[in-house]
Amino acid sequence: MSGSRCQTLYPFSGERHRQGLRFAAGELLTLLQVPDGGWWEGQKEDGLRGWFPASYVQLLEKPRKVTPQPGEDSLNCPLPPGWQSYMSPQGHRYYVNTFTNANGYHTPVTPMHQMEPGHMSLRKPSGDPQSPGSPRVPRRLARESSRTINCVTFPHPDTMQEQQLLKPTEWSYCDYFWADKKDPQGNNTVSGFEILLQKQLKGKQMQKEMAEFVRERIKIEEEYAKNLSKLSQNSLAAQEEGTLGEAWAQLKKSLADEAEVHLKFSSKLQSEVEKPLLNFRENFKKDMKKYDHHIADLRKQLASRYTAVEKARKALTERQKDLEMKTQQLEIKLSNKTEEEIKKARRKSTQAGDDLMRCVDLYNQAQSKWFEEMVTSTLELERLEVERVEMIRQHLCQYTQLRHETDMFNQSTIEPVDQLLQKVEPAKDRELWVQEHKTGDIRPVDMEI
Amino acid sequence: MSGSRCQTLYPFSGERHRQGLRFAAGELLTLLQVPDGGWWEGQKEDGLRGWFPASYVQLLEKPRKVTPQPGEDSLNCPLPPGWQSYMSPQGHRYYVNTFTNANGYHTPVTPMHQMEPGHMSLRKPSGDPQSPGSPRVPRRLARESSRTINCVTFPHPDTMQEQQLLKPTEWSYCDYFWADKKDPQGNNTVSGFEILLQKQLKGKQMQKEMAEFVRERIKIEEEYAKNLSKLSQNSLAAQEEGTLGEAWAQLKKSLADEAEVHLKFSSKLQSEVEKPLLNFRENFKKDMKKYDHHIADLRKQLASRYTAVEKARKALTERQKDLEMKTQQLEIKLSNKTEEEIKKARRKSTQAGDDLMRCVDLYNQAQSKWFEEMVTSTLELERLEVERVEMIRQHLCQYTQLRHETDMFNQSTIEPVDQLLQKVEPAKDRELWVQEHKTGDIRPVDMEI
Repeated sequence: MSGSRCQTLYPFSGERHRQGLRFAAGELLTLLQVPDGGWWEGQKEDGLRGWFPASYVQLLEKPRKVTPQPGEDSLNCPLPPGWQSYMSPQGHRYYVNTFTNANGYHTPVTPMHQMEPGHMSLRKPSGDPQSPGSPRVPRRLARESSRTINCVTFPHPDTMQEQQLLKPTEWSYCDYFWADKKDPQGNNTVSGFEILLQKQLKGKQMQKEMAEFVRERIKIEEEYAKNLSKLSQNSLAAQEEGTLGEAWAQLKKSLADEAEVHLKFSSKLQSEVEKPLLNFRENFKKDMKKYDHHIADLRKQLASRYTAVEKARKALTERQKDLEMKTQQLEIKLSNKTEEEIKKARRKSTQAGDDLMRCVDLYNQAQSKWFEEMVTSTLELERLEVERVEMIRQHLCQYTQLRHETDMFNQSTIEPVDQLLQKVEPAKDRELWVQEHKTGDIRPVDMEI
Repeated sequence: MSGSRCQTLYPFSGERHRQGLRFAAGELLTLLQVPDGGWWEGQKEDGLRGWFPASYVQLLEKPRKVTPQPGEDSLNCPLPPGWQSYMSPQGHRYYVNTFTNANGYHTPVTPMHQMEPGHMSLRKPSGDPQSPGSPRVPRRLARESSRTINCVTFPHPDTMQEQQLLKPTEWSYCDYFWADKKDPQGNNTVSGFEILLQKQLKGKQMQKEMAEFVRERIKIEEEYAKNLSKLSQNSLAAQEEGTLGEAWAQLKKSLADEAEVHLKFSSKLQSEVEKPLLNFRENFKKDMKKYDHHIADLRKQLASRYTAVEKARKALTERQKDLEMKTQQLEIKLSNKTEEEIKKARRKSTQAGDDLMRCVDLYNQAQSKWFEEMVTSTLELERLEVERVEMIRQHLCQYTQLRHETDMFNQSTIEPVDQLLQKVEPAKDRELWVQEHKTGDIRPVDMEI
């Protein structure tokens, strides 16, 4: 896929990524690297290179023929085992896994990455296209199409259009942690990002505990090796002679060899398993804190801007009421002074409307910044988690490899013993011993008188 | 060779063997069993069956063609590496091993087991054949052909004929322990049999020490297994989830499996190596004491009969002196009374001569009994030593076999861990975790006024 062209769907600042590529919506990029993990490298038309979330772009070469047409029941490809599909009254295809009760919609409208770029926002697939920040006359309908929870604005569930997941096939962190959650005690809310962070910290803890476990194993091996080595130097039956004595001496020596094997195992466990596990991501907690603070700061900013919006909205309402009242007074009294006041009230009302629009704009900018940070940070956490699991897997494989080698080496310590035991020969041993200890081979004879 | 016929070379009482076969020299036997170890089973012509030392008989079917002829240099078959042969002035072939400086004669006279049976004594290959116990006139020459050391009569080294070893090819105990030896301090003499007994007792001690060594190994294995098992139950990183969590749990479980393997090793070491080593020959020392006392008693009897011989010899000398003196007196005085005294002195001298012959006969009987006991007991000790070495070899082989199995079983404990590590999949783990912990997949939208 490297070398392919793609078009950006949403603006991306790239600020939080070391080599992030800043772009607006609708730009054309050439793909340079497309590794797994959700981050791709691309080059803009002006030559700038950098990284961005793969979900922010659509591939231009993607064949259109497989696209389901709106309203058409084109999804007649076989479903995976256990899945069934239903059509909802709104024309949405609904999937249910009959084993797990997992379920989900598939919206029959054109998938997001095939829509015209630049005409929609990732965060706002609803209603009329509009560029963010452009002030408009408030509409009652618009207000009901969304609701704000903990200062974050979500589409209203009753009226919202189906959202396509950013990474539909991957159970990606960036798709499932937008809402806050009551903590188990029900006293505080915990942000989705906080839950992801806790997962990371727990993962780091698990990794540390595995290293501790390996350390315990190392101790056991060292102790075992020490005992074998000590026993090997024991003088028991050291006076056994001949070929049997040689085999016995080798058997004792084999314990020292075994000790050596286990000592080597423990030392390799330390250098190739324990240490890498311990040293992997030394400043991990500190880094996680930074993520945490950054996202939390953005949420705080969002909250304060939300307060400003609410205040501006209240002010506007008051000004509108004031204008309405003055207009009614004018109808009754018809005085010059009143007309002057109406003009003033209208001007103030318009000003309050502008204020509100400015506040909403600022709020939306903050929410947009938080949104982008959420996507990039959760994708980074996801990458880190994959890395952690892979790293641990690799070092546990190293553990089994070392265990395997230990058994192999251990077997080889016994071979010379076996060889000498095959050579044990009682007759040979007797010969050696008799030669050394014989007292006389002249037999007695009868005494003669 | 079973079924072959043989002729006995020397008389054998068979008293000290549980199923010993008593025979005189020159009897014909049919061989029933001819196992290694120097003891054969045979049947006499009267149907009696029993066991006897193989060296007491000659095979009748043995082909004569390989027999070297006296004086003929017929030994031109190639010698083993390192050996050279020389012919001595007396016509003896003399062998020297140029590596070890071992050496020995090969007498060119007809080998003992091919001599005519019944015409010689095993203990007395010298001089004229005579049946033991038949009194003869003492000869000066005979006296000089032997000498008595610690009451045992040996042929004189200056005049003795070459003796063929009882078991020429075997470095048998029965051939090399006839003489006594000064102990290392030089204060006491130790009999050859005593040295063989000490070897047995030391062998028994070695065997006991090997069992102790194995016991120590058992303890080490038990300790190791205990530690592995304990670590396996440790809760470290027990909260790791998903496929990695499964692999980790299996890795921990594999330690329990390893512990099981080592526990099995230690328990088999106990039942199949330690216990057999400890229990082999429980009453061994008591049995050895019995041998010791029996041989020592025979030596004491031999000593007391030797004293009797010396006393009788002295008495005879005195009587002969007395007779001589009296004969000289007769030549000088020629009195009746003296002639009477000469008669009396001659009678007493003859009686003293008869006494001496009787004492020598009793001495020779005792020495013969001791000799037979020496041959049968040393062959028994030789058999026991072979048995001991074979037994120990077999159990040490059992040890290496168990060690080998332990390594094999140990390897198999790691296989399921490897399998699960192959199945570790970060994406799968993320899916499971996200399904459980997700907070919300609806993305925020811009706030509208």
